[in-house]
Amino acid sequence: MDEDIIGEVRRTVRQLCENFPGAYWREKDRERAYPSEFVNALTEAGLLASLIPEEYGGAGLPLSVASAILEEIHANGCNGAACHAQMYTMGTLLRHGSEEQRRQYLPGIASGELRLQAFGVTEPTAGTDTTSLSTMAVRDGDDYVVNGQKVWTSRAEYSDLMILLARTTPKEKVAKRADGLSVFIVDMREVVGNGMTIRPIRTMINHATTEVFFDNMRIPASSLIGEEGKGFRYILTGMNAERILIASECLGDADWFIKTGSDYARDRKVFGRPIGQNQGIQFPIARAYADMRAAKLMVQEACRLYDAGDPCGAEANMAKMLASEAAWAAGEACLQTHGGFGFAEEYDVERKFRETRLYQIAPISTNLILSYLAEHELDLPRSY
Amino acid sequence: MDEDIIGEVRRTVRQLCENFPGAYWREKDRERAYPSEFVNALTEAGLLASLIPEEYGGAGLPLSVASAILEEIHANGCNGAACHAQMYTMGTLLRHGSEEQRRQYLPGIASGELRLQAFGVTEPTAGTDTTSLSTMAVRDGDDYVVNGQKVWTSRAEYSDLMILLARTTPKEKVAKRADGLSVFIVDMREVVGNGMTIRPIRTMINHATTEVFFDNMRIPASSLIGEEGKGFRYILTGMNAERILIASECLGDADWFIKTGSDYARDRKVFGRPIGQNQGIQFPIARAYADMRAAKLMVQEACRLYDAGDPCGAEANMAKMLASEAAWAAGEACLQTHGGFGFAEEYDVERKFRETRLYQIAPISTNLILSYLAEHELDLPRSY
Amino acid sequence: MDEDIIGEVRRTVRQLCENFPGAYWREKDRERAYPSEFVNALTEAGLLASLIPEEYGGAGLPLSVASAILEEIHANGCNGAACHAQMYTMGTLLRHGSEEQRRQYLPGIASGELRLQAFGVTEPTAGTDTTSLSTMAVRDGDDYVVNGQKVWTSRAEYSDLMILLARTTPKEKVAKRADGLSVFIVDMREVVGNGMTIRPIRTMINHATTEVFFDNMRIPASSLIGEEGKGFRYILTGMNAERILIASECLGDADWFIKTGSDYARDRKVFGRPIGQNQGIQFPIARAYADMRAAKLMVQEACRLYDAGDPCGAEANMAKMLASEAAWAAGEACLQTHGGFGFAEEYDVERKFRETRLYQIAPISTNLILSYLAEHELDLPRSY
Amino acid sequence: MDEDIIGEVRRTVRQLCENFPGAYWREKDRERAYPSEFVNALTEAGLLASLIPEEYGGAGLPLSVASAILEEIHANGCNGAACHAQMYTMGTLLRHGSEEQRRQYLPGIASGELRLQAFGVTEPTAGTDTTSLSTMAVRDGDDYVVNGQKVWTSRAEYSDLMILLARTTPKEKVAKRADGLSVFIVDMREVVGNGMTIRPIRTMINHATTEVFFDNMRIPASSLIGEEGKGFRYILTGMNAERILIASECLGDADWFIKTGSDYARDRKVFGRPIGQNQGIQFPIARAYADMRAAKLMVQEACRLYDAGDPCGAEANMAKMLASEAAWAAGEACLQTHGGFGFAEEYDVERKFRETRLYQIAPISTNLILSYLAEHELDLPRSY
Repeated sequence: MDEDIIGEVRRTVRQLCENFPGAYWREKDRERAYPSEFVNALTEAGLLASLIPEEYGGAGLPLSVASAILEEIHANGCNGAACHAQMYTMGTLLRHGSEEQRRQYLPGIASGELRLQAFGVTEPTAGTDTTSLSTMAVRDGDDYVVNGQKVWTSRAEYSDLMILLARTTPKEKVAKRADGLSVFIVDMREVVGNGMTIRPIRTMINHATTEVFFDNMRIPASSLIGEEGKGFRYILTGMNAERILIASECLGDADWFIKTGSDYARDRKVFGRPIGQNQGIQFPIARAYADMRAAKLMVQEACRLYDAGDPCGAEANMAKMLASEAAWAAGEACLQTHGGFGFAEEYDVERKFRETRLYQIAPISTNLILSYLAEHELDLPRSY
Repeated sequence: MDEDIIGEVRRTVRQLCENFPGAYWREKDRERAYPSEFVNALTEAGLLASLIPEEYGGAGLPLSVASAILEEIHANGCNGAACHAQMYTMGTLLRHGSEEQRRQYLPGIASGELRLQAFGVTEPTAGTDTTSLSTMAVRDGDDYVVNGQKVWTSRAEYSDLMILLARTTPKEKVAKRADGLSVFIVDMREVVGNGMTIRPIRTMINHATTEVFFDNMRIPASSLIGEEGKGFRYILTGMNAERILIASECLGDADWFIKTGSDYARDRKVFGRPIGQNQGIQFPIARAYADMRAAKLMVQEACRLYDAGDPCGAEANMAKMLASEAAWAAGEACLQTHGGFGFAEEYDVERKFRETRLYQIAPISTNLILSYLAEHELDLPRSY
Repeated sequence: MDEDIIGEVRRTVRQLCENFPGAYWREKDRERAYPSEFVNALTEAGLLASLIPEEYGGAGLPLSVASAILEEIHANGCNGAACHAQMYTMGTLLRHGSEEQRRQYLPGIASGELRLQAFGVTEPTAGTDTTSLSTMAVRDGDDYVVNGQKVWTSRAEYSDLMILLARTTPKEKVAKRADGLSVFIVDMREVVGNGMTIRPIRTMINHATTEVFFDNMRIPASSLIGEEGKGFRYILTGMNAERILIASECLGDADWFIKTGSDYARDRKVFGRPIGQNQGIQFPIARAYADMRAAKLMVQEACRLYDAGDPCGAEANMAKMLASEAAWAAGEACLQTHGGFGFAEEYDVERKFRETRLYQIAPISTNLILSYLAEHELDLPRSY
Repeated sequence: MDEDIIGEVRRTVRQLCENFPGAYWREKDRERAYPSEFVNALTEAGLLASLIPEEYGGAGLPLSVASAILEEIHANGCNGAACHAQMYTMGTLLRHGSEEQRRQYLPGIASGELRLQAFGVTEPTAGTDTTSLSTMAVRDGDDYVVNGQKVWTSRAEYSDLMILLARTTPKEKVAKRADGLSVFIVDMREVVGNGMTIRPIRTMINHATTEVFFDNMRIPASSLIGEEGKGFRYILTGMNAERILIASECLGDADWFIKTGSDYARDRKVFGRPIGQNQGIQFPIARAYADMRAAKLMVQEACRLYDAGDPCGAEANMAKMLASEAAWAAGEACLQTHGGFGFAEEYDVERKFRETRLYQIAPISTNLILSYLAEHELDLPRSY
């Protein structure tokens, strides 16, 4: 059954993407603009609500379908980074929120009326060491008062809600560093300019990422998701889904680079024959193809485990690492195949090349994945 | 069901392998001796007959089970190269032989009474360009008379039967080079020293490989499998199974290197701490682990397609390439982790390292796999 | 002596570069603007005239000094691409032009009054197969009439003169494809808008590159450099200098990435310690450092041979390949070390990363260098 | 002048090596025999005494000449590992021994009468952490009494003298771990079987390496070189020479692999043309060639610094790393180019392949070189 749904969903995505050709994305990139039209089209097609249960207005589909959606978006030259968080950020709310919170937010998120795209976790001084974050939320009557700062909060300017991780018990007073953190759902419409300041960061890619500052930001106590102090664990459970979905985007990127590179290599003639006849051109593409196919099997394996409720930490991490590296290898091969033309904006190669590079760093770096595998799969001592 | 069988088969193999520790293989290696005891044990356990249909005395199991058997052998420090051909070489006979031929040979092969381990295809001047081979089989009354030479004919000294590919129509008289080749099943007990001469080749590994010379070797006309002139196609159909099974051995090698390297890294202390705490040690092992896991998914995918009778050329080739490279990466990491001790015979690392290197070359080289992918999956022009 | 000059020149460049910090280049990059102020500063310091003989108003210094200038520019975070051609493009004129031509142009180039930055060789359909180019220059009375098109003509909008390679004898009428090509020095001030049209190409980097179209462009017959039909050879002799100087810029890039990455790794603390303490961070930088040092020795070797008038084709090509790859390895390590911050414009890493990628493609791709080495150093058959 | 000497020395070595073809080395390898004839020939030609000052009967040549000798030996298919220590192990004695000790030993070493090939430093539990070694030498009257164990003591069975590093002050009583170690010159002829036991280790290569056990071994107090407790520093000064010379052997290996691989690729025809016409074959060899040339420049740079008495730690380490990796890349390319034939002993490729692999581990591993560069050249914190 899933195979049928996936096939149909892929067709839907492909058709939708035809309306957003390279020229659309080049313009957004040049103007650093948010692709609202594309996001709206996905929303209207219900694609961003695929993981939300039917009872809350979503499609109630498994992760494997969401994976296919994002892969297909990227394989067709589009980019899901502007809105993929809308698909999975609600997971924390869904799994750990109260029924009241779910009823309050999920239907709006499913319809697209409420945009939940901001995930406020990373801080400049904590980096990937999440448990050392220092943004504080102090209970004050019926409110929490939040002070601190987040960084790399993507899409914050285009979001109505934020999932926020903050410390509710000072580091000095907790037994384990993972304790004392809590998760909140913040209605940004109430606090932007009123305790919350968003400052965009210009980056190599058109990625709408920001720094977010909290200056005595007041949020109602009912914003708390689940219990105080358990926030780190709540966040962790969502990370596997995020990694698998980002890996899916990488698969799509790899696919796009391989098709685009092969097409060019077949057509472009130098020294009286297609350049694709040279092993120096075709071998790197062929190798990236094999890597992409293998990474895809790992993404599917991780989806299978995730959807069955089985542990999938290693598989989600490996999927992200292998897919992001296959995409990069494909990107390098595609760029090099195009020669100078790969640098010209109108071929779209250089834009995709910049975009896909991020996924060796976010949402988790290759080094931390290797550390995870060493520690948890090979039983080696932690290295840091 | 398959999962249960595979689990049981793996347990059987593991137990069997416990009787053949490193010391056993080191001695065989040092003396360049054939591991008869090990081959006999596998035969007695019925493991080499797993792919032969039950009606001919085999177990009638799918390729996925044969794959698990060979993987497990290698993961437990043993080596299937001395006898893996007994598992799959009979495939040509099974698929293309007459019912009479099948009844004549398969039960004996299943019981181990008849050893079909020799596969006479490669020739010194033809290399991987199989269709240019020049060994001739000329019909003469009720016989064929064979002249020519093969090389890299593994296990010929330990085989009763040989599948032989020879030209029955001269190259000049065929429309396509792939035509005019025929397959024979040769009873070596009749012809060794009587038209067939076997000369062992000393190699980096204890691999019982040989050159085989045919000097007016007479074989009965009934040795012909299928029709004259269709031999190349018959051989091709068997190659995917071979590649998948070799890939399975590579997975086992990778697994062994990863376990052995991790164990050493955990135990060995230098500068006051386990060397496995160093990312320079643990990252290459972790990376090989991810590569091995991905290659394993590709092997399983190729098995699935093969067992379903679906085309699996690309998957079989990718499985072989990815698994052989994962094994090599794991071998390099394991050797480097062991430092000088990796070079000492008693750690078994150096023997495994030499053994696993072969699989980037045989049964097909990495370059030819990349060419295959470029031509058949990416639709690029043939490069040679 | 050279060592002293080089030391002094490096100091001069370093001081000059201090006036052009990251903010300067970021602004130019954001606005796709030409760094006139920087080019003027180099011109005033006489640095761009270093290779022009003293009798024509230059400094008459060897290539090793020019190499040091460009390396130092890039090592200090600046970029020589906007003007490096002013240093070496005049070489064709100097070596093959008449004394009259030299006197006419070189002093102006030396003073910076005349900008000779445009090198019109590459054509869209010829690619790296220079001898198949099709732009035609037909003699007509005292003029040549030029028709055709060039691509990747960098800095054409910021140049007064262009060295142009065009066919003067049709391909069909020459014995060897390398014959029938001629070199001209074109005074662009006379022909832009009058037979010559320049169209900028937007690329991944701020690189002022263009397409140039010739539509019955008339240039005086005295524009011809040397003899008709020998142009390809004239151009070839200049290519080694270009490759060595581009390699020098790559060395500077590598140096910048290594310093910047090391500084960050030393300062940035995550999980309670500098990230540079992790081998996963420090090993890639250390490896890039070794590669950079080795590439630098190759650049120096190529300079030594070039300045001695000895053949240096292999060394110039290897210098370009090794230096461009060392720069890329350093760039990858630096970007990955910075994590998300590497993508933020204000760290300058992402800009340098985009810039240095070009040098694996231009002025000659890695594949063509490997082909050159295979053919000329290893005596292997030409592969294309 | 040096260039002339080097040229002449290379010619001498080349001629000498002609008498020791592949068949000679294959036999030694197969029988695990010591190449006495080859070592004698080198000794008689005075090549092993090149670094010993003329006043002690040597040639008094710089390290650059010794480097050329070893490179040339390996480039001609021979192997210097059986005797290279005779060239440089005496350096500790030369630099730190008394005049009396020098007069006692150096002339015999120069003439070859005394073999100083054993360098007793590494211990099984200390590994590369030299300062943690535990072999003790306790002063007892006019003797020292030595107890403990060494490992990887190459050529101990073919040596008359051993340079031994042992602890003279217990670890607990020294301020710094590098203190309390002393160097001795041991006359093995007096102690083998009388306190010293040598046990050969069988390895992947024919390398005559051993474990050496000391059981109340008595040596005269006059065996002490220099002062008690300064041994670690004495040993360190010799390490750069060793690394540079091993790097030189790697250059020779790389050269041999590149020539042998290119020759085979030019001659071997498959699919109707030389396999060397395939970029998949020629590019890896060409790349190894560029790496080898760059590594050679680094070896020469390290020699230049060493011979000038300048610090050369970074350069010696980089030379060893780059050369050993270039040799391995060349070995991999050569093996893969040869296909199955690369595994056959008679082509010598597999033997060289096994031999050259060692140099990524000994005398110092790649990881420790990267750590050195990170710490000392990039000023990053020590990682272990």
